[in-house]
Parts: sequence; structure tokens; C-alpha cells
Amino acid sequence: MTASLPAPTSRPRVLIVGCGFGGLAAVQRLSRADVDVTLVDRTNHHLFQPLLYQVATATLSAPAVSAPIRHVLRRQIRRGNLTVLQGEVADVDAASRCVRLADGGRLDYDHLIVAAGATHSYFGHDDWAAVAPGLKTLADAFDIRARVIGAFERAERCEDPAARQAWLNFVIVGAGPTGVELAGAVVEIARHTLADEFRRIDSRQARVVLIEGSPRVLGAFDEALSDSARRQLERLGVEVRTGCRVTAIDADGVSYQDGEASEHLPAHTVLWAAGVAASPLGRRLAATTGATVDRAGRLEVLPDLSLPGHPEISVIGDLANAYSFRDPATRERPAAAAPGAGQDAAPNPHDPRPVPGVSPAAKQMGRTAADNLLARLRKAPTRAFRYRDYGSLATIGRKAAVVQLEAPVFGHLKWSGFAAWLFWLFAHVFFLIDFRSRVIVLFHWAWAYWTFDRHARVIAEPATPLDAAAPPPPDTKPAA
Amino acid sequence: MTASLPAPTSRPRVLIVGCGFGGLAAVQRLSRADVDVTLVDRTNHHLFQPLLYQVATATLSAPAVSAPIRHVLRRQIRRGNLTVLQGEVADVDAASRCVRLADGGRLDYDHLIVAAGATHSYFGHDDWAAVAPGLKTLADAFDIRARVIGAFERAERCEDPAARQAWLNFVIVGAGPTGVELAGAVVEIARHTLADEFRRIDSRQARVVLIEGSPRVLGAFDEALSDSARRQLERLGVEVRTGCRVTAIDADGVSYQDGEASEHLPAHTVLWAAGVAASPLGRRLAATTGATVDRAGRLEVLPDLSLPGHPEISVIGDLANAYSFRDPATRERPAAAAPGAGQDAAPNPHDPRPVPGVSPAAKQMGRTAADNLLARLRKAPTRAFRYRDYGSLATIGRKAAVVQLEAPVFGHLKWSGFAAWLFWLFAHVFFLIDFRSRVIVLFHWAWAYWTFDRHARVIAEPATPLDAAAPPPPDTKPAA
Repeated sequence: MTASLPAPTSRPRVLIVGCGFGGLAAVQRLSRADVDVTLVDRTNHHLFQPLLYQVATATLSAPAVSAPIRHVLRRQIRRGNLTVLQGEVADVDAASRCVRLADGGRLDYDHLIVAAGATHSYFGHDDWAAVAPGLKTLADAFDIRARVIGAFERAERCEDPAARQAWLNFVIVGAGPTGVELAGAVVEIARHTLADEFRRIDSRQARVVLIEGSPRVLGAFDEALSDSARRQLERLGVEVRTGCRVTAIDADGVSYQDGEASEHLPAHTVLWAAGVAASPLGRRLAATTGATVDRAGRLEVLPDLSLPGHPEISVIGDLANAYSFRDPATRERPAAAAPGAGQDAAPNPHDPRPVPGVSPAAKQMGRTAADNLLARLRKAPTRAFRYRDYGSLATIGRKAAVVQLEAPVFGHLKWSGFAAWLFWLFAHVFFLIDFRSRVIVLFHWAWAYWTFDRHARVIAEPATPLDAAAPPPPDTKPAA
Repeated sequence: MTASLPAPTSRPRVLIVGCGFGGLAAVQRLSRADVDVTLVDRTNHHLFQPLLYQVATATLSAPAVSAPIRHVLRRQIRRGNLTVLQGEVADVDAASRCVRLADGGRLDYDHLIVAAGATHSYFGHDDWAAVAPGLKTLADAFDIRARVIGAFERAERCEDPAARQAWLNFVIVGAGPTGVELAGAVVEIARHTLADEFRRIDSRQARVVLIEGSPRVLGAFDEALSDSARRQLERLGVEVRTGCRVTAIDADGVSYQDGEASEHLPAHTVLWAAGVAASPLGRRLAATTGATVDRAGRLEVLPDLSLPGHPEISVIGDLANAYSFRDPATRERPAAAAPGAGQDAAPNPHDPRPVPGVSPAAKQMGRTAADNLLARLRKAPTRAFRYRDYGSLATIGRKAAVVQLEAPVFGHLKWSGFAAWLFWLFAHVFFLIDFRSRVIVLFHWAWAYWTFDRHARVIAEPATPLDAAAPPPPDTKPAA
């Protein structure tokens, strides 16, 4: 362990931005390569995003769904080729081959893999962000958790029934997997977890409304599974409103268009799961390289995940608009957008297929980008990315899920219900997690579910009133 | 479960402010009484403060040391006499017998038990609060944790050795149990947890300096234990500076007086464990009742824990300046301050003895205040508070502790080392925790220690530079 900067060497310097699934996979793929790797992330942890909604709904605590980067990568840091730095990449200068960090630092590179991920898109209504938080980071999850748990506390203080119900109304916008999972979890908190813990309110009076613009929930899934998911949600108590487009959100509620009718739902807690946009770094990267971005801000990458004219820069994960190709020798993107191009593209039998913004895809892209980087160093040809779509999973509450698989072993499988939920659980543990002992993770989740799930709802900050919401009227009689 | 306010009854209304050890004990003691109890707390959780330093040093996660109030008291809410409300009491009007909440709500009472606890005192230097956080709440613990973990990350980014060392210097001010525990935990993070996880820095180069104004660490303990604690700290690697008085703290470091010499230690992370003051509610309560407060803002209570002239108001826990009396019929406080009056008074063989600001004392005061309240309702005489001092405990790192007991079973026992640490662990579980299954808690802590202690160091917020600290110079070479 040195206490000062080691002497410079002549090994190629690889810089990887972001330690989500894509960045982490790339780092690990390069662990024995003859390069110097630097990994930069804004936070100190790798986040297991598929379970983030469980932190947001107070079922799991943060350590159960995340791991400190340095701990995960300690061997590579200690004995290998890796330096990990915490910082935020603000800009890239492709001509000088360096990145600038938000606090003024600068890092040079010979090869760059950008895996900075996605953030929320409010379709131009950025003012909605303050009142309708999305769920991408741990900080988001804590915010949502505080709002959801706090809403019941505020309702308990209200004397006026209308004011109380506005605190007991919860709206989730967007019925993709995140929205469905949030809705199922919130309704379970209201119906089960908190049911006997209030004196004035009945938490079961909470309404959970899931609003979706398209005709189905889980639009990326098979129609039969989509219908099954809707039924399971409604059985849990979620009110599902498909074909409804949100027109306004403020601290008092949500306005939406249901066909011809305009509706308004008073609700102080609105969660956003409807739009994802690429990290702003995407546009800066485009500006410095001449690459093009799509409407969501994702960079249109070549089949081998590099940028046109910049083979030393690869973009992966949610930041990339990528295609999957059966032929590894493919050099060009398809001329026109393939059917279903978009973030949650349904499984597309056509080749090339757009790659969806899901965790397994990011992971595979990370490995391919790393392999292609090493190929370039060897002056060997790079490979077009091929996405192995093992299927999609979404949970509905804590005992049900929908699963759609296309794996070689399973074939084309559609599944829903409790058995699907068990499969979901094992799939997450065994197919996606490789940062800690799988057995320990499984045990920890089981433990959390059956003993401490309630205790993840401890909120650190004292209650603060929402500015735009009326303060509760004086409580003249404390109880009876 | 009603969904609206129940009809008023004629039962006495008891209002309890604060759900720490004192407030919780009072609520539980009244669980079967023929009164209506309302419990108000700023947060939604009961905090097990003795272990809060472990959240601050990333060993345990928040749910392991706290519990949602509603969950703990669910039976009393569901079938009993209790209403729990989340809110902050801003003021008390003793003449009208009501309290005002910070967000404008108002609660009336017939009997009031105030258990609002303590906050930090900076001995008049309130500007130190921003740069030297104390440890009283979960929010404090998260703040300290982010600073400690973040300091190592900042050090890794520094090229200048002096700048780097300023990030690797940690100062803890105050060598009572909290300071000793923090110091031992921080040095263990540096020497063990993070030792192999950095490339540029050697986390073992961190200096942990514990500054104390009095001649000994753990001044409330026996001298032999005090010396043992100091040796154990030094063996762990903590630099102990007793007889040193801090004169200035800013974002760059700490200045202190060591005898005649003035010293300055460059350090960006300074933790405050040196002074405790009563909640500001104390002074407002004094103003409205005519009661007197001591220098720390604690209310001087009568032997039965009520306020002079206001038998319907009791003050307990860290907010109270109370004495312990062998004779339950005692009606008056001692005329002059007894020797050793203060927050961490050494066990005092004289009677009456000042009650120290520790968790078991708060718990016992809660029970006595509740008993006395019921006595007043029966028109029976109240009892003077008697503190059963079972002894003091402090841990030094993760495998050692000092224990000083005066229990009937154990006699007068002084103990230190690993066996003492095991005793400490069991004592905490069995003597202080009654809000969840003791076996589950014990298992959870063991589990956390041996599998996830590292994972409690996930920090949610991205790194932000401290304004007054120089940003790291450009990192021109990422690694080698």
C-alpha cells in the first residue's frame, strides 16, 4: 500500500464512469487486463436497482440492496489494476481525452467507457419533479419512503375528512415494472403493515391509484401477463387507470385526462415512474464527439458500443441507444428505427433488436465493451453487441409476480402468481448479484421480510410540513 | 378502527412529549390506566441511543438501533388508551394547559410529562455546530457517517500530502462514553475495515485524536477503569489528549490549549461529544411555569419529578435536573448543589444524589412519573424518585469495554476487556431493550457485525465538496 501516487507507467489508461450494473461489469471484465483502470462514481456504492423500490416502501434497508464499491472491488484495488475515485463527471473533452469532474478535478484517459445511467424525465414538465419524485437512487428511495410514511402521520393529525383523505391518497404515474412494484408495495403498507397502528385513521382507507398513458400495465410484457398483472393489482386494492394521461401535478394533487373527461385527484403523495431520460452527461458527450442522441438523450452507439469516429469511447447501459445483433461482424446501426424502439421495447423477434434499459442488458453491455476494448488493444476486430434476453420479471406485492422468459432452458414461459414470485427472488439472487455471497443475500432478504421489514420505516428527519399543503387545523381534543 | 375522531370522554388527558427512553417508559407504564394518553414525538421512531455511535461509524444500520413508535406501541394504540402523533412541540402554555406544535397544531392536556431530551452544547460557540456535528439523533448519525466515510474518499483524490493528511485526521472532542466509543470505532474503520480498499492512500495513516478538557477519559468511572480505557484506546491507535481545552474549530481544523502551549491540528472531520444541553423546550417550559433551569437548561424538578407549583407537569430524562432519594417521602430538593452535580456525575454515596443523564435513569424516571401521575389521580401521596444505579458501561472498539457495576447481584464490580464487552452486549439487550424480541435483536447485531458491518457504510448522497476546504488539485494521472 503506497501512501503517495505511484510512478506513471505506459499501460493504457482506461476510465470507466459509473458503477451501476454496466460499469461494474466492465471493471470486473478488465480485472486481469494489462491496463490501468480508474472507476469514478458519484456515490460510494453500487446499487441493486431492481430492489430499490423495496427501500422506497420501507421493506428493506439500504445495505440490503447496495454495496460499497471499494468493498466489492477490494481485491482488484489491492492487488490489481484498479483505482476507485468518488466524484461526479461534469464534462468530457474527447479531443484532449480527459474528463472534468464537478469539483474541478481532471482525469485523463486513453479509453473511456461511459456508464452514467439514467435519470427521470417529466416530458418537459420539470416543475413536477419537486412534487413527484422518481426512483433511481438511494436518495430518491429515502425521499419517497419519508413521504409515504409521513403521509399517514399527517393524516392522523387531520381533523377534516377531506384533508385527511388527501394525505391518504397515493398516486403512482407510470405502469411499467417500477410503477407496478411501487403501487403493489404502497397498497400493502396501507392494508397490512400499518393497519393496526393508528387510532384516528384507518390506513386501509388509503387509495392507491396507478395511472398509465398506454392501454396496458407492463406494456413490455405479453398481453396475457399484462392482464394477469392488472388483475393481481386490483385484487390487492390498487385502482388501475390505463389510457389516462397526466396533465398537471402540484402539491395538492394530480390532474389527468381519461378519454374525453378531465379528472382531478387530491393527493399529497405522487410518485413518478413514467419517464426515464439519459444522464445529462449524454448530451455533453454528444457535443464533444459529434455523436447523435435520441429523444431521451441516449447516445446512438455503433454495433460494438463505441461512438462513431471515436473507437476509444464506448457508451453502455441506460445511457446508450443500442441494438442487439446476431452477426458479430455487423458494423452499422439499422437505417430506420426498428419497431418498438424505446426504453421498454417488447421482445422483438426481428434482428437487429433495440436493447431495453434493463439491468441484465447493462451488465452484458459492460462485458462486451470491455472485451471490445481489449480487442482494439490487440488490433483485433471488435464484436457487435448481442443481447441475451432471458426475460422480464415484475413483482406485484410481496407474494406475486409476473415472469416472462425466453431462456434456452425454460423456453418461452409465461408465469404469474406466487411461484413466479419465488422464481423472481431466486433469479435476482443468482443471475444478477455477484457482489456478495448469494446465500448471505438470500438469507438477509428472508430475514428482513420476516422480522424487520417494519423497521425499515424509521425516518431520520423530523416531520416538516409541505409548504403548499395546508397545515393541520388545531387538534383541540387529543384523543378519546 | 374508527375513521373519524372518537367522541370526547371525561377521562383525564395525559400528554407525553418525546418517545425516548423516558417517554416510552411512561407510556408503557400507563398502558392499562383509566386515562387517555397522547404521545407526541418529532420523529416516527424510538431510538436506542447507546448504540447510535455504531450507526455513525457504519457498523449498524438504522433499523437495528431504532423502532417505529407505532409498531412498538401498536397494542396500546389498537386496543388501549393511546394516540400517537408525529409533531414537534414548540411551546407550552401552563395556564391554559395546552401545548403548541411547530406546524400550528395545538393539544390540550390535564397532565403533562415532558421527556424532550437533550441536544448539543458548544459552550457558547454555536458556530462550531456546523463543522463539528454531535451525535444525538439518527440524522446526526447519518451526517457523521457520511463525513467519516467521505473523508477517506476525499483523501484518495488528493495529490498534496498535507491536504491528504488533513482529510485523514479525525478529531473527537470530549472523552465521555460517546467520545470514547466514537474514537474507538473510527480508528477501527481506518485500521481494519478500509485498510485494503484504497490505492493511493493507506487508510492506516489516519490519525484519530481524542481531546478532553478534564484529566481523565471516562471521568465518571473509577480511576482504575479510566486508566484501563485510556490504555485500550491507545493500543487501538487513538491519540488521547487529556487536560486540553478546545479554543477554536473551523472547517480546516481544531485549535486547543495544552497547558501553556497552543496547538493546531489540521482536520476536516471533527466530531463533538463534549457538551450536552437540554432541549430548548426546557427554557420555554420554565418561562410558562416559573420553574428554574440550571446552566445546561435542565428544569430543576421536585423529588417526585414534578415542577414546583405545577403538580400536573412532570419532567424526566435528560431534560430534568433531578435527584435520587432513598426516602420516598422527601418533598424538597437539597438546598445546595450536591458534590458532583452535573450530567455525568460519578456514583455518589451521598443521599440525595444527582441523577446522571443516562438511558436507564430516563427509563426509571418515566416509570416513576407515570406512577406519581396515577397516585395524584387517586389523591394518594407521590413518591420521591430513587435511581437504581446498576453501573456504567462504555465500549472501546469492538472487542473491549469497561464496565462498572454496583448491582445487588454483582456487588461492586470493575471489569474491562473482551469479557466486559460481552457483558456490555448482553446487558444492553436484556436490561434496556424491551421493544422487540431480545433474541432477534441479539441475532441481528451478531449478524450485522459478522456479515454486513461493512455495508452500513453505503452513503446515499453524492459527494459534495466542503466550501471552506480547498478542492482537490487536478488529478493528471489516474493511476499506475
